[in-house]
Amino acid sequence: MTKQLPAGSVIGILGGGQLGRMLSVAASRLGYRTHIFEPSAGAPAAQVADQLTTAPYEDKDALTAFANSVDVITYEFENIPTAALDVLEKLRPIHPDRRALAVSQDRLAEKQYLQSIGLSVAPYAEVNFVDDLQAAMAEIGVPSILKTRRFGYDGKGQVRLNTDSDPETAFTELAGAPAVLEGFIEFEREISVIGTRAADGQVACFDPGENVHLDGILHTTTVPAQISGRQRMDAVLLASQILTSLQYVGVMGVELFVTKSGLIINEIAPRVHNSGHWTQQGCTIDQFEQHIRAIAGWSLGDGQRFADIEMLNLIGDDVDKLTDLAATPHTSIHMYGKAAVRAGRKMGHVNRVTSVR
Amino acid sequence: MTKQLPAGSVIGILGGGQLGRMLSVAASRLGYRTHIFEPSAGAPAAQVADQLTTAPYEDKDALTAFANSVDVITYEFENIPTAALDVLEKLRPIHPDRRALAVSQDRLAEKQYLQSIGLSVAPYAEVNFVDDLQAAMAEIGVPSILKTRRFGYDGKGQVRLNTDSDPETAFTELAGAPAVLEGFIEFEREISVIGTRAADGQVACFDPGENVHLDGILHTTTVPAQISGRQRMDAVLLASQILTSLQYVGVMGVELFVTKSGLIINEIAPRVHNSGHWTQQGCTIDQFEQHIRAIAGWSLGDGQRFADIEMLNLIGDDVDKLTDLAATPHTSIHMYGKAAVRAGRKMGHVNRVTSVR
Repeated sequence: MTKQLPAGSVIGILGGGQLGRMLSVAASRLGYRTHIFEPSAGAPAAQVADQLTTAPYEDKDALTAFANSVDVITYEFENIPTAALDVLEKLRPIHPDRRALAVSQDRLAEKQYLQSIGLSVAPYAEVNFVDDLQAAMAEIGVPSILKTRRFGYDGKGQVRLNTDSDPETAFTELAGAPAVLEGFIEFEREISVIGTRAADGQVACFDPGENVHLDGILHTTTVPAQISGRQRMDAVLLASQILTSLQYVGVMGVELFVTKSGLIINEIAPRVHNSGHWTQQGCTIDQFEQHIRAIAGWSLGDGQRFADIEMLNLIGDDVDKLTDLAATPHTSIHMYGKAAVRAGRKMGHVNRVTSVR
Repeated sequence: MTKQLPAGSVIGILGGGQLGRMLSVAASRLGYRTHIFEPSAGAPAAQVADQLTTAPYEDKDALTAFANSVDVITYEFENIPTAALDVLEKLRPIHPDRRALAVSQDRLAEKQYLQSIGLSVAPYAEVNFVDDLQAAMAEIGVPSILKTRRFGYDGKGQVRLNTDSDPETAFTELAGAPAVLEGFIEFEREISVIGTRAADGQVACFDPGENVHLDGILHTTTVPAQISGRQRMDAVLLASQILTSLQYVGVMGVELFVTKSGLIINEIAPRVHNSGHWTQQGCTIDQFEQHIRAIAGWSLGDGQRFADIEMLNLIGDDVDKLTDLAATPHTSIHMYGKAAVRAGRKMGHVNRVTSVR
């Protein structure tokens, strides 16, 4: 059995956005304090955290002081610079670990890893030079999507290619960053599985949710997803397989395409995931607490879904709808405490309970 | 219509215990920051609050700086010194207001007020001197309970009187504090109503819960209470009447005795209440958010109960059960982040969902 982190221990969280904020609240429910490390000022997570360090990931002294002040380290985003991890992991355990990060920080490594354990991904080709892209377009075909290997999120770092696209222009648009070309998948729907693995190997997955994106950003997640029992089982087994093969500790988001020929993995995220926010109203234990339980050596909680939920992201001036949403029955509001409203910025979300079972 | 507090505003909370802690989390969900004012070091609420002032209630400079840093003030306990309120209320609105505090800070004033609006309380008599107590015992009879007018909670500031009790000893035990003698009520059960009134007059009450106390401290709250539909309606109407007559803004806890001759008010608390913690798992909007909504000028949320719940307080070394409770299905844990375990100290609570409707 894993040793449980004692009450009052401090969990260090890299990244001070909304995911860090909701992780911090979950940690408090279990009797832990949190320390946020975030380069930008005005971190939403700091408003509900015990301590805050504002410093760049290049500041080794700040990283060292941060690590020494905490008992375990986790993160809300996968793009943590390798040099920062080198400093931190000498001082405190990091969950999920270095291997999970290495796989998920790089789209190419991720696809290669998933294939190596027998899972399906979209057709892809490595693109390091503009010549690679011409060859890749010939191999993969169009429509297809050119994505940077690192640092992409919410549709950023992506260019869609069609028959009339110029490879040179597309490659320039990504500023010459190493990339992969992904074949476009004809999918029936997009779903995701939020899975958790505890340090003792216990795995639990939340019921798959069905996702709708708008302009490359998640718009809604609906549970239950409109999939068959067999597809649901396949999705959960597939997520479990990834968690187990990586000896992963914590929550992982696995985005899947449902296609006529089965489930194809779009991408994995080694962290709590926007498409798991519905668990806050749909389950006794939500994804944020499940993650804290895993990294703090607890047994996993009861994540069985007891309600049908529609999660709606509030992007940019969607916040203008807040007063109306606040008066809507069965609707729970989760604002992120961000100072400025900007187009495309995730300002909050609401979970609407559409039926209780 | 009341003006809604803008996103990013700061809510000042007097008192940094577990109620302040859970209010702070609720405020964050609605996009607000919190500033805790607490005389003691190590305030549980500070771990999830944006700002903390550690100062005594006699420190007028600290109170002034605190008030100037916030947009509205509320509190987690009713025993705020009058002199502190004098400083604060000149600078910022305080909800619930001075009148609600005046009534509920003093057991005698509370009983007189409730009677003045036609509600039933236990037989009582004012006791300022030991001679009063002798006369009161003759009038009210025994068994009865001598309670200080102010500063009592969790069974503190109370002496139970029987036929062989010596009035002088009992009076001395309360250190000569002004007191009331309360007749002992033969009750079938204890219930409580958690009611909320918004600034625009809207009132919403959560379903009454049934309370079991052990050693003067709340042990469990169970919903639904085992009462008739008529009793449920009476309880809710009575709570609404108090809220409306006080033109109250915020959450109030109303503790009631269910007796053969109807409902008798035990006491009211002008704040979120331990017997309302079940709402965290039983309702879309819990008592903490309902309070923040009320004091921030929002419409009240959907507090309809969708599950049966048993709330269990974790007192003192009950925390030893935590590992077992964490692995119990349908069970949600809420720890308070208190550093030291002490006998009689509220360390946390769990909400067990016993059925979903």
